[in-house]
Amino acid sequence: MLEVGIVGGTGYTGVELLGILALHPHVRIRTVTSRGDAGKTVAEIYPNLLGAVDAQFVEPSVEALAGCDVVFFATPNGTAMRMTPELLARGSRVIDLAADFRLRDPKVWATWYGEPHACPELLTEAVYGLPELHRRQLGSARLVACPGCYPTSVQLGLLPLVEAGAVRLDRLIADVKSGVSGAGRKKEIPLLMSETGESFKAYSVPRHRHWPEIVQGLEQVAGTAVGLTFVPHLVPMIRGIHATLYADLQDPSIDVQRLYEHRYADEPLVDVLPPGAHPDTRNVRGSNRCQLAVHRPHGRPEAVVVLSVIDNLVKGAAGQAIQNMNLMFGIEETTGLWQLPVLP
Amino acid sequence: MLEVGIVGGTGYTGVELLGILALHPHVRIRTVTSRGDAGKTVAEIYPNLLGAVDAQFVEPSVEALAGCDVVFFATPNGTAMRMTPELLARGSRVIDLAADFRLRDPKVWATWYGEPHACPELLTEAVYGLPELHRRQLGSARLVACPGCYPTSVQLGLLPLVEAGAVRLDRLIADVKSGVSGAGRKKEIPLLMSETGESFKAYSVPRHRHWPEIVQGLEQVAGTAVGLTFVPHLVPMIRGIHATLYADLQDPSIDVQRLYEHRYADEPLVDVLPPGAHPDTRNVRGSNRCQLAVHRPHGRPEAVVVLSVIDNLVKGAAGQAIQNMNLMFGIEETTGLWQLPVLP
Amino acid sequence: MLEVGIVGGTGYTGVELLGILALHPHVRIRTVTSRGDAGKTVAEIYPNLLGAVDAQFVEPSVEALAGCDVVFFATPNGTAMRMTPELLARGSRVIDLAADFRLRDPKVWATWYGEPHACPELLTEAVYGLPELHRRQLGSARLVACPGCYPTSVQLGLLPLVEAGAVRLDRLIADVKSGVSGAGRKKEIPLLMSETGESFKAYSVPRHRHWPEIVQGLEQVAGTAVGLTFVPHLVPMIRGIHATLYADLQDPSIDVQRLYEHRYADEPLVDVLPPGAHPDTRNVRGSNRCQLAVHRPHGRPEAVVVLSVIDNLVKGAAGQAIQNMNLMFGIEETTGLWQLPVLP
Amino acid sequence: MLEVGIVGGTGYTGVELLGILALHPHVRIRTVTSRGDAGKTVAEIYPNLLGAVDAQFVEPSVEALAGCDVVFFATPNGTAMRMTPELLARGSRVIDLAADFRLRDPKVWATWYGEPHACPELLTEAVYGLPELHRRQLGSARLVACPGCYPTSVQLGLLPLVEAGAVRLDRLIADVKSGVSGAGRKKEIPLLMSETGESFKAYSVPRHRHWPEIVQGLEQVAGTAVGLTFVPHLVPMIRGIHATLYADLQDPSIDVQRLYEHRYADEPLVDVLPPGAHPDTRNVRGSNRCQLAVHRPHGRPEAVVVLSVIDNLVKGAAGQAIQNMNLMFGIEETTGLWQLPVLP
Repeated sequence: MLEVGIVGGTGYTGVELLGILALHPHVRIRTVTSRGDAGKTVAEIYPNLLGAVDAQFVEPSVEALAGCDVVFFATPNGTAMRMTPELLARGSRVIDLAADFRLRDPKVWATWYGEPHACPELLTEAVYGLPELHRRQLGSARLVACPGCYPTSVQLGLLPLVEAGAVRLDRLIADVKSGVSGAGRKKEIPLLMSETGESFKAYSVPRHRHWPEIVQGLEQVAGTAVGLTFVPHLVPMIRGIHATLYADLQDPSIDVQRLYEHRYADEPLVDVLPPGAHPDTRNVRGSNRCQLAVHRPHGRPEAVVVLSVIDNLVKGAAGQAIQNMNLMFGIEETTGLWQLPVLP
Repeated sequence: MLEVGIVGGTGYTGVELLGILALHPHVRIRTVTSRGDAGKTVAEIYPNLLGAVDAQFVEPSVEALAGCDVVFFATPNGTAMRMTPELLARGSRVIDLAADFRLRDPKVWATWYGEPHACPELLTEAVYGLPELHRRQLGSARLVACPGCYPTSVQLGLLPLVEAGAVRLDRLIADVKSGVSGAGRKKEIPLLMSETGESFKAYSVPRHRHWPEIVQGLEQVAGTAVGLTFVPHLVPMIRGIHATLYADLQDPSIDVQRLYEHRYADEPLVDVLPPGAHPDTRNVRGSNRCQLAVHRPHGRPEAVVVLSVIDNLVKGAAGQAIQNMNLMFGIEETTGLWQLPVLP
Repeated sequence: MLEVGIVGGTGYTGVELLGILALHPHVRIRTVTSRGDAGKTVAEIYPNLLGAVDAQFVEPSVEALAGCDVVFFATPNGTAMRMTPELLARGSRVIDLAADFRLRDPKVWATWYGEPHACPELLTEAVYGLPELHRRQLGSARLVACPGCYPTSVQLGLLPLVEAGAVRLDRLIADVKSGVSGAGRKKEIPLLMSETGESFKAYSVPRHRHWPEIVQGLEQVAGTAVGLTFVPHLVPMIRGIHATLYADLQDPSIDVQRLYEHRYADEPLVDVLPPGAHPDTRNVRGSNRCQLAVHRPHGRPEAVVVLSVIDNLVKGAAGQAIQNMNLMFGIEETTGLWQLPVLP
Repeated sequence: MLEVGIVGGTGYTGVELLGILALHPHVRIRTVTSRGDAGKTVAEIYPNLLGAVDAQFVEPSVEALAGCDVVFFATPNGTAMRMTPELLARGSRVIDLAADFRLRDPKVWATWYGEPHACPELLTEAVYGLPELHRRQLGSARLVACPGCYPTSVQLGLLPLVEAGAVRLDRLIADVKSGVSGAGRKKEIPLLMSETGESFKAYSVPRHRHWPEIVQGLEQVAGTAVGLTFVPHLVPMIRGIHATLYADLQDPSIDVQRLYEHRYADEPLVDVLPPGAHPDTRNVRGSNRCQLAVHRPHGRPEAVVVLSVIDNLVKGAAGQAIQNMNLMFGIEETTGLWQLPVLP
C-alpha cells in the first residue's frame, strides 16, 4: 500500500483527490493538511465523503508529511516549491497539481507568476505529467508537475496535428471554456452564483498563465516556435472544459480523422469520437477521460477545428495526478480511475 | 397608434415581442396568431403577461392580419414567405424575424434552407434590418428581414474592422456561444434541461445557416470575398449570445479601441466598453443593447479579439424587430426599448 | 422631481433600486453611496446601467444625503438605525430595505439581531411597508420599514385566510424557497456557484430572523397568537421566491379561491391565478408582482395549500420600496413599476 | 456471473442502470432493449459509456430477455406488468423500476394509473424494494417493485418517527423538491431548459401518484390510517431530491436525534447527520446514499422537521434496484454501489 499525503485538502482538487484515492485499491491516505480546517474531520467539511474517508485535517508541515511515499500538492501556486526540496530529500515523491514546476525556464516562471522561483534547480528534473506525451519519463520521476486544466485539453487536442507537422504553427487559436470550479474555492465576489449563473463571459483575454505552459508544450513537440492566441471563458456550470481549437492545414487533403484515431489508438483515457460528433462536457463529467472530435467546417477549406472536452477537476487535475502516481509507482495506469461519467 | 399583428405568438420571440409591444406607447396589438393555441388568451399561455396583454390567439390567416399596419412573423423559416406577398398587396408592412428574406440570392437561399423560395422577387426589395448598417433604407422599407441572432452579434463585432479594411478577410473566425432559448420552444430531447444543463458543447460545426448570412453581410461591406470559420456552441443558460471574434490586423499599430469608439459613437444601442473590459452576457439580458470590447491578446501581435454580447431574444430578435418598426414608421428609434438589463 | 439618495448602492438591492429609479419619471438620483467603491461611477461596477445611470458612488454620510427628499437604505442590518434619526431631523424621509425598523418591540429586535436597537423610539413610528396591508398609513409616513423578501411572500399568501379567520392559527407552516441573490453580494464560500449550483438545501431551520417578522405581521391581523413553523431553502437559481404555505381550514366547505380573488380584486400588483394553476417564479422575474394560487390537495380534507411567488429583489425588496415611495409622496402607486417579467 | 437484461435502456434510469452494472463485479449485461434505438450501440446514444458498455440495443421481447437471471424494467408505467408473468414463468426474476407492482390493491392501482392492472395476482407476491424496511423478504423475492423516488426519500425520512409512534399520524406533510431528471427523458415543452431553468414551481398539488404509495407504506408500518399532504416541486437542477417533512410530536421531550441514529445505526447506505446539519442534495449526487437531518425549529415546540436527500436516479431508482438485486441473489448488499458523491 502506498502511503499518501495531501497538502491543501479543502480545495476542489483536494476533495477530488480524496474521493478518488479513498477507493484506490493500493493507497492509504495517511495525512491530509489544511491550514484553515486543521482539527476537523474531512467528513465535517465534505459530507459526501462520510464513511469513505475518516481522516482528519492537520496543519501542513514537512514533519507531518515525511514518511509518505508520495505527497500531492493541491495548493495555490507558490506553495509546493517551498516544501518540495525537503520532502524529496526525505524520500517522498511529489506530485504538484499547481503551477510551480510546469515551466522549465525559471525566468519565464518569474515573469508569469510574479516572484522568483524557490527551487529553480528542480525545474528541469520535474516531469510534465501529461501521460499521453511523457509516459516513459513518468515511471522514474521523483517530481511530477501536473498540467493545468486548460493546457491538458488544448494539448491533447492539438498534439496529433503538431506532431505530424500538419498545420501552420504561426496561427493557432484556442478558444476555451471552463466551468466555475476551475477558479477554485475562493471567497471572491465574481465567483458567486449570482454573478456567474445564467451568464457567459471571456476573461483574462490580454494574458493568462496557461499561455506559456501550452506554448512550451507545443514548441517541445514541434521543435520550433509557435504562435498561439488563447482566450478563456467562464461557463455557467460547475465542472467541465471545452476547448475549441482552430488551425490551418498545410495540406487540406489530409485525413484528419484518421490521424487522430491513429495517434490515440492505444490511449486508454482518450476517445476520438466518430466523424460528425460534438462532444458534450457532460460526457466526461466526473471521469478521467478526454473526448475529441475533429471537423472541417464549411467556408475555409484549409481550416480544421478540434473539439476537446475534459472534466477540469479530474483529467484536468486530480484524476490525472493519480494517473501519474500510478505510472510513477508501477501500478496499472487506470487503477482507481474507472469512475464513469455522470450523465445526465 | 400603429395596429400590429404577430404571427406565431407562442414561441420565445413571440412572447418577447408581445411583452415589448405591450408597453410601447405608439402601438396597439390587434392580432396575435397561433396554430396550436388559437382560442386561448395570451395570459393563459404566458402568465407573465397577465394584466399587460389581454389579446387572444387566433388561427393565422391573411384575413385575420390584413388591416394591420405592420405584421411581425415570429414563425419557423418558410412561413413568412408564403403570406408576405398578399399582406404587402393589402397594404400591411412586414417584419420577418425568421430567415425567409435574409439572403438576397434565391439560389443560396434554396441551398441552405432546402426548398425553393416562394417569392424570390421580394428578396432584393427586403431590407436587412441591422439598423447600425442600414438605417437609411429602413425608413422607407415595406419588408424587413431581421438578422439572425448570431449574425447580429458577429456583424456588429466585425463591422468596424471590415469597413476600415483593417484586417485580413481570408481568415476570420467567429466562435459563438448561445443560451438555449436560441433553439426555440420545441419538443426536442436535446433541448431538455437534463440534456443541456451543466454541460457545454459545440454543434453544427460542419455547417450552420447563419454562415451564409454573415458572409453576405461582411462581403457587402468589404466589397470582396470573405473567408469565415463559424462555430456555434450551446451554453447552459437561457438567454444571451457571446461572440468571440478572431482576426489578423493588416497593420498591428492601429488603435483598434479608438476605431470602435468612433464607429459606434452615435449608436444609441451599441456600447463600446473601456479597454480591458470583458462583457458578460448578463450585462444586456432583457435589453436591446449590444456591448463590445476589443483586445490584443498576448502571443501574436497581429491578432485582434473582439467580444460581442447581446440578448438573443431582444437585440437578436424581438427588440431589433421593434427597433426596425420604429425606423419604418418614423418613430424615435429607441421608443419602447428602454428596458434595462436584468442583473443579477 | 423627487431628489433621491441611496445608501449602499453596490449590493443587489442597490443595483435594483438604481435600475428602477433610473426610469422613474418623477425621480432624480442625487446621491449614491458605497463604502468600498466611492469614487467609481455606477456603470463601472454595473455595466448594465451604462447610459442609464451616470451617478458616481460617494462615501456614505449624513452630509452627503441631507437635502434628499427620500433616502433608501440598501445596507446590512444595523446601518440605517444609526443614520435615520439625523436624516429625519434634517427633513428627509427614510425607506429602509433592511430589518432595522421591521419589528415593533425593541426587545424582540435585540434578541433576533444581537445588539440593542439604536433608536427604539422610532420603532412605533415606522410604518411596515406592505402596501396591500398598510396602504393608508404609508401616505403620511416619514419612515418606512420594507418587509423582508420571505415575509412579503408569506404574508401576501396567508393574509386572506388569517383575516377571514378561516384557518387554525396554531399550526401554520411556511416552506419557503429562495434564489441565491437573496443572500446578497457577499464574499462567502457557501454562495459560490460551485457550492450552490446544481444542489438544493434547507438552511437556518432551527431559527431564522424572518420568523418573528412574519409572526408579528400575522398576529397583528389575527389579533391573537400564531404558531408558525418556518423553513427556508436555497434554490440553484438567482432570483425568485416560492412560498408553499400549509394551513388547516376551520371549515373545509369554504370557497378559498373566491376568498383570495375577493381579497386581492383591487390590488394592482397581486394576481390570484385561476384554479389549478401552479405559479412559476419566472412568471414574476424582474417585476414587482406577486402571483398566488390556492389548492386543496388530496389526502386531508381540511388542508389548504397556498403557492406564492415573488421576485425577491423586486416585490421582495427594491420594487416594493419604490411602491412605498410612490405612496409616501402621492405618486400613482405603480409608477415606474411597469417592467414585465422576463420569460423565458 | 448474473446474466442481466434491461428493458428500456435509453431513459435516464436505463443509462444509470447501465453505468452501475458495467462496473458491477458479478454481472454481465446480456440484453438491453429500446424500442426507438434498436440496432444502435449503447455508446452511440450515451457516449459517456464508451469503452465501458459495448452492448447494442435490441427490440424488446420476452424471447430476447428469457435466459436472463434478472430483468430490470426501466420503462414507463404499464409496461412491466405485460411482460412479467411470462418472464417469471420462464425462470427470470424481475425488478421493476416503474410503478406497476408498487401498490398492493389492484383497485387502488387502477384508480391512480387509469387502467386495470394486467396481472393483479402478482401484486401481493411482489416485494416492495425498500431494503431498509423489507430486507428480509427481498432475499427470496422473484419480483421486486422498486419504490418511487419521492416515496424513497419520504419513507426513509419518516420511518423512525412512525415506527416509534412518536408523531400524530393525522397531519403529516411532505414538501418535496426534485431535479428535472425525475420527469424523465421525454419530448415535452415543460421540460425544456428554457422552461425549467432559473425558475421554481410546485406541480400536481391536487394529486400525485406517489401519494398512495407513501400512504400505503406508512400505514403498513403504523398499522393505522395516515393523513398526509404531499406537495412536489421542480428544482432547476438535474439530479437530486430534497424532502422537507413536517410532523407534530406526541411528546415534545423525545430525543429525536437519538431515535434516528439508533434506527439507522446498521444501515450501510443511510447517514444520519449530526445535530444542526442541513444536507445538500449534492452530498449524495451520483451515489446510492440517503442523508437525513432532524430539527426542532423555533416557534412550535411540538414540531419536528426532517430533511432527507437522495439522488433520484440512484437511491431513488437505478442504485436501489441494484441494491435489491444484490439482496435477491445473496450478493453483499453494497456491491457495485461504492461510487462516491460527485462534489462540487
